[in-house]
Amino acid sequence: MTEILKLDNIRKTLIRLEETLIFGMIERAQFLSNDVIYKKGAIPIENYNKSFMEHLLEGTEKIHSQVGRYTAPDEHPFSSELSKPIIDREYEWPIKRNAININDRILNLYINNIIPLICKKGDDGNYGSSSVCDVNILQALSKRIHYGKFVAESKYLSDVEGWNKLILKKNKEKIIEKLTDAQVEDKILTRVEIKAFAYGQDPLSDIKEYKIDPATILRIYKEHIIPLTKETEYLYLLERI
Amino acid sequence: MTEILKLDNIRKTLIRLEETLIFGMIERAQFLSNDVIYKKGAIPIENYNKSFMEHLLEGTEKIHSQVGRYTAPDEHPFSSELSKPIIDREYEWPIKRNAININDRILNLYINNIIPLICKKGDDGNYGSSSVCDVNILQALSKRIHYGKFVAESKYLSDVEGWNKLILKKNKEKIIEKLTDAQVEDKILTRVEIKAFAYGQDPLSDIKEYKIDPATILRIYKEHIIPLTKETEYLYLLERI
Repeated sequence: MTEILKLDNIRKTLIRLEETLIFGMIERAQFLSNDVIYKKGAIPIENYNKSFMEHLLEGTEKIHSQVGRYTAPDEHPFSSELSKPIIDREYEWPIKRNAININDRILNLYINNIIPLICKKGDDGNYGSSSVCDVNILQALSKRIHYGKFVAESKYLSDVEGWNKLILKKNKEKIIEKLTDAQVEDKILTRVEIKAFAYGQDPLSDIKEYKIDPATILRIYKEHIIPLTKETEYLYLLERI
Repeated sequence: MTEILKLDNIRKTLIRLEETLIFGMIERAQFLSNDVIYKKGAIPIENYNKSFMEHLLEGTEKIHSQVGRYTAPDEHPFSSELSKPIIDREYEWPIKRNAININDRILNLYINNIIPLICKKGDDGNYGSSSVCDVNILQALSKRIHYGKFVAESKYLSDVEGWNKLILKKNKEKIIEKLTDAQVEDKILTRVEIKAFAYGQDPLSDIKEYKIDPATILRIYKEHIIPLTKETEYLYLLERI
């Protein structure tokens, strides 16, 4: 098995992404929800019929695609109109090549569930700044969740026959069950909670005030990030055989 | 005096930017220095003769200018080729309109002094990811440093006559002296150090290991951010009269 697929190394990446996600959400939480930036056409943009935030997301992805971002096996774009990379970078693909991309679900989840959890409702006019934060978080969420492909490949290789049997039956319930390691999930949640407490408070304040309630960050991991990662693992396994 | 110019409110903004800067630098520090991304032409880009990172910076600014970023009095672009904003946003200008922009110095400082301080030297091929971090940090640095204009305006209004006398003489030394509040600077440095300790360590590790040495973050503030902010204050005052 290649180094990158060792579960320990995968976990290191996932652990590192916790900082990115928590920092990112704390940054976004300084602004109000600014719902208008998520509504198609609410802020009119010439020759464009999606939302203001999506416009920034797609523009950013276009630029990032030029620097080769979406040729990497762990990066997935939200938009379909990308540019050709200006650098040739050959990435190792330790997983099976695939076209699984659940960013449409991640985008929906983010706008409808995560934003209301982390931001106070209202409009402070900081549309640009809020959208810039959104793009950062969405990219990190997408990377975290699609990293499930690496997890799945690693688990698959450790028991090819056992997995093949389950996969052929397309028994989602059993596959998810076999993918689930309750102990590891508990560990993730404990760690995320500790980090949410450490990073979310003002280290100089006597009053324990949090930029985002640590319980909220925990909930986002428990109810959304972990299940969607497993969903990605499942989708990958179906194609893996 | 408008609310925004009260020193207490200015400080709140500066304090909030400490998180953005420290988080940003910690994010960048996970990659090696990847010097090639800062060298003009080292990564060939069609019809472009600057560096790979600058290409991303300029592309990002072009997108951000569309969402109106650079019409705000506290935002300053690094590049000159911007797009027309797609939203009309009227910003309040509590400071005197001016064209002071020291981003060329900030860019030099960042590449030549800050990157070698926060990143281990080497090339890990993460050019895109490193550049994305660079853009985030540069934007935060620029905002932090140019916020000196707000500080200067506030101080100016509190003693118009006293300042006018100094400014007419263009006595830089005396102006910087009058701008300097050693007690406030000490407070900033103490706060930054505490934050660097709180955010830079793995809250779960027994060994006190830091993603960036807190002394480094402190040094960046002391030797670069604070002096350049004062330089901006000085430049603004020269035009203020």
